[in-house]
Amino acid sequence: MSPDHFTPVPLEKAYRLLNHGPTVLVSAHHAGTDNVMAAAWACALDFSPPKVTVVIDKATRTRELVEASGQFALQLPTQAMAALTVGVGTDSAKARADKLQHYGVDLFHAPGQGATPLVHGCAAWLMCRVVPEPHNQQAYDLFIAEVVAAWADDRVFRDGHWHFDEAPEGMRTLHYVAGGQFYATGASVRV
Amino acid sequence: MSPDHFTPVPLEKAYRLLNHGPTVLVSAHHAGTDNVMAAAWACALDFSPPKVTVVIDKATRTRELVEASGQFALQLPTQAMAALTVGVGTDSAKARADKLQHYGVDLFHAPGQGATPLVHGCAAWLMCRVVPEPHNQQAYDLFIAEVVAAWADDRVFRDGHWHFDEAPEGMRTLHYVAGGQFYATGASVRV
Repeated sequence: MSPDHFTPVPLEKAYRLLNHGPTVLVSAHHAGTDNVMAAAWACALDFSPPKVTVVIDKATRTRELVEASGQFALQLPTQAMAALTVGVGTDSAKARADKLQHYGVDLFHAPGQGATPLVHGCAAWLMCRVVPEPHNQQAYDLFIAEVVAAWADDRVFRDGHWHFDEAPEGMRTLHYVAGGQFYATGASVRV
Repeated sequence: MSPDHFTPVPLEKAYRLLNHGPTVLVSAHHAGTDNVMAAAWACALDFSPPKVTVVIDKATRTRELVEASGQFALQLPTQAMAALTVGVGTDSAKARADKLQHYGVDLFHAPGQGATPLVHGCAAWLMCRVVPEPHNQQAYDLFIAEVVAAWADDRVFRDGHWHFDEAPEGMRTLHYVAGGQFYATGASVRV
C-alpha cells in the first residue's frame, strides 16, 4: 500500500526533486529479487522528458537487477533515515542476504508501475527507465535513464516546490560527504 | 593572485568537494575569452583518478570555450554569492558581453594551471580536463572530465572534511532548486 502523503509530481517538475543534489536510494527488482543501495552520485540530466544520471558500481547486486530489468527507482531518504542510508550503502546483499530486513527497509509498490519497489519514509521518488548506453555503463558505471513517474511526500514537496522549513522534524533530505557524515538540506536562500 | 585561504586539496579527496551535490560555477577560457556560467547538474563520477560529469547546454558561450580548450573549472559559490550565481546562470555572454563585470565576477589564475580562470570567493575549486565523449556531449550535453587539481578555502574545507558549522557567516555552499531559490548546505548529520 502506498504511504500516506504519497502524491504525484508532474513530470515537468520532476527535475526539482534532484536539483539540490541530495543523496538517493536506488531500488530495483528482477526475477523475484528486490534490492536497495545508496548513491551520492545521482544527478538531473534533462528537463523534458526528465532524465537522470546515476553511478552504480559493477560490484553491486542492484547493478545486476538494473541491467536485467532496465528499470530502477531513485528516492530521497530523509534525515531520519540517515543510518538506514549508510547501512544499505555499505553492506552488499551479496554478503548479507537479509540486508533490507536488517536495516529496516520497508518496501511498497506504486500502482500501475510494475515490480520496481519504492522505499517507505522517503521525501520523494522517481521511477526511471534505463536509456541503454553500454559504453557509459561499462567504462564509467554511469547509467542514463528517463523518469517515467514521480511522487513526493506532500508535507515536504507540493505545488512544484520544496517546503523543508515548514515540514515535520527529520524530513529534510541528506547530502552525503564521507565516513558516515551527511549535511541536511539547510535554510532557504532566495535571490 | 590567488585569494587568501586558497589551499590545495589532495586529488584522492577531491570527490568530497562535490559529493554533497552543490550548485557550481563553470569557468572556461579560449583564445582571449573568459566566461563563467552556473550549473546545478554537476556530479562526481569516480574517485581515482577523480572524474566529474557536468551538463553544459549547447546555447552557452561557456560550451564553446570548453569544446575549444578541452578544459574547464568547477567551483562552489557560497551563500554570499547567491545573486551572482543566478545572474551568471541566467544571462548569456552572447547577449550581454559585459556579463562577468556586470555581476561582479572576479577572476584569478592558479599558478601552473594554464589559462582557465577561477572565481574569487568560492568555497572550493576543481580544475578539469575533458575526457572526449562526443556522443554524450551531442546527445545529452553531458561532459565527462578528469579532475587534475583541486583547492578549497581552508576556513570551510580542510584535512579532507567540510567545516561549515565553524566557518564564517555566508560561506555555506548552495543547492539550487528553481526560480532564484536555493537551499544552503545545512546541519551536519553523523551516523
